[in-house]
Amino acid sequence: MAVSGGKVTQIYVCCSCLSTSHLEVVGKKKIARLVSLLRHASKPKIDVIVDSALNVHNIASHLERESESNDLALGVLIEINGGQNRCGVESRNEESIVEIYRSIESYAGLTFRGLHCYGGNLQHVRSPAERQSLVMAGPIAAAERARNSLAKIGVSCDIITGGGTGTFQFEADGGVHNEIQPGSYAFMDVDYSLNDDGKDRFENALFVHTSVVSTASSPGERTVVDAGSKAVSLDCGPPCVTRLDINQGLSGSIDEGFTYECGGDEHGILIHSSDMCGKVLNEGDTLRMIPGHIDPTVNMHDWLICVRKHPSGKDFIVEDTWRIRGRGPGI
Amino acid sequence: MAVSGGKVTQIYVCCSCLSTSHLEVVGKKKIARLVSLLRHASKPKIDVIVDSALNVHNIASHLERESESNDLALGVLIEINGGQNRCGVESRNEESIVEIYRSIESYAGLTFRGLHCYGGNLQHVRSPAERQSLVMAGPIAAAERARNSLAKIGVSCDIITGGGTGTFQFEADGGVHNEIQPGSYAFMDVDYSLNDDGKDRFENALFVHTSVVSTASSPGERTVVDAGSKAVSLDCGPPCVTRLDINQGLSGSIDEGFTYECGGDEHGILIHSSDMCGKVLNEGDTLRMIPGHIDPTVNMHDWLICVRKHPSGKDFIVEDTWRIRGRGPGI
Repeated sequence: MAVSGGKVTQIYVCCSCLSTSHLEVVGKKKIARLVSLLRHASKPKIDVIVDSALNVHNIASHLERESESNDLALGVLIEINGGQNRCGVESRNEESIVEIYRSIESYAGLTFRGLHCYGGNLQHVRSPAERQSLVMAGPIAAAERARNSLAKIGVSCDIITGGGTGTFQFEADGGVHNEIQPGSYAFMDVDYSLNDDGKDRFENALFVHTSVVSTASSPGERTVVDAGSKAVSLDCGPPCVTRLDINQGLSGSIDEGFTYECGGDEHGILIHSSDMCGKVLNEGDTLRMIPGHIDPTVNMHDWLICVRKHPSGKDFIVEDTWRIRGRGPGI
Repeated sequence: MAVSGGKVTQIYVCCSCLSTSHLEVVGKKKIARLVSLLRHASKPKIDVIVDSALNVHNIASHLERESESNDLALGVLIEINGGQNRCGVESRNEESIVEIYRSIESYAGLTFRGLHCYGGNLQHVRSPAERQSLVMAGPIAAAERARNSLAKIGVSCDIITGGGTGTFQFEADGGVHNEIQPGSYAFMDVDYSLNDDGKDRFENALFVHTSVVSTASSPGERTVVDAGSKAVSLDCGPPCVTRLDINQGLSGSIDEGFTYECGGDEHGILIHSSDMCGKVLNEGDTLRMIPGHIDPTVNMHDWLICVRKHPSGKDFIVEDTWRIRGRGPGI
């Protein structure tokens, strides 16, 4: 897996492809891990999100047990359902929002920080106008309702956070959120490049290399590569496969005259179109794939190889290698 | 990820979920790795599969360069396209089959071992009768044609290998194959359990545990768990989610009154049916998932926790933990 582009060292900490940036911490084991993180030498400031008073109670109880002279403190945001119907309190459920707020405030180790309202379901609505309209009616309206519920009891929110690579501009302009949390933009993928946002908005910066393992069966019609469902996540569509030509492939989705079909866990089958005329793929050739969906693809790999274009423009230089320490199921 | 059942220590070496049992070795780097494996202290006997004379030449050349007094030897099988249109020589291409055979025989370090003809595309045809008919017309007929092509020049095949968990019985009874290579049967998954082979043919022996992280949004209608596309592969359908009740869930697919929908990379959403009446899922509850597709699911995890039922029947005992060393993209 290769990463290219400028300022590569700035990507790691901000990219949700590599970390879990907005997850609930529920259950004894996870709460214990969270609290032990607070004891880390670097004394991190951590905010968690919650959507139930029970979870607030469980986190606070563990924190109090582990805390020596109240040295451990957590910020807490209330998660609001922005329309994805995943986690989050219903934004019209004023009673529950206020109950959770009061629960947070009742514990010495916890500080209420604000609201988390994210619409993962809207990130890939292709039309920007339609996407904006849905974000306004969804996460922005929901966050506003929740904010107003708390304002009625005199409580203001320091942070109202949300937005992803597909919608962050709308949350930023919406007048309710004051923090955005996009992550995929740093690497990009085929699914995001298919949003009608202009091809050059963000360049692709992460590629999975694959090589041709077979041209035996119907040469000229299909070519088999060694990347299947263990190498690229196929849940949001197939990867875009290109040659290694370093002067193309950084923006948008590229049509090289062949399309990828899954050939099982360890194989991909490139179906050739008539445009392939004159182009030959040979056994052993290395090709470059822009993954369909970046997050679960990064999750399957152990290393990122960071490269920069050689000044001559003819080759890449390996700048660094990063172990993907954050990979794993998150369960 | 928990594995249960008897004789757990016998699974590891035979399970293709954990290793790559029938892959082509193409390209300089992979060939170098293959040859270095031959130098391993345990002196493994290794067979590779090929579908081109070029690959035979590349493997043999590397072997000759690395070999001291011809101490390195490889067995080679010719891969035949059994109808999946992935890798493999066309079974009617007698000229190519004979050319590859002669190429293998021309190198001192290589020994022709036979044919590999596998139909991955047929493993999940639901009706056993239809599946058998397709296996006979596909991999069995193709292997027979290739065998006959070689017989014409006086060559016999020591090994004709193929068959997976869905079809191995048909290859075993087909009169052409003399080796089968099923792997998924050791763990099973939802997709295989949906074949009409009888619920009790193989028990499920691998489960991914997940826990309830949210019941805030529409309690009674949906429940959110902490397992998304980074925890279970969704390419062959959703996992089957059950309670931890140890007296059920080992055979077939179980309807607990809720169905799993992907909620993104780190979430699953359990949609409740009316049969849920009276059953309550609480924040923090641990649930058990039978993955939809076992191979790419194992690939996402680092450890298998091997458990055995306690004699009392009321709990599990951890027998062993296995690191999943074979995981990775295979590219």
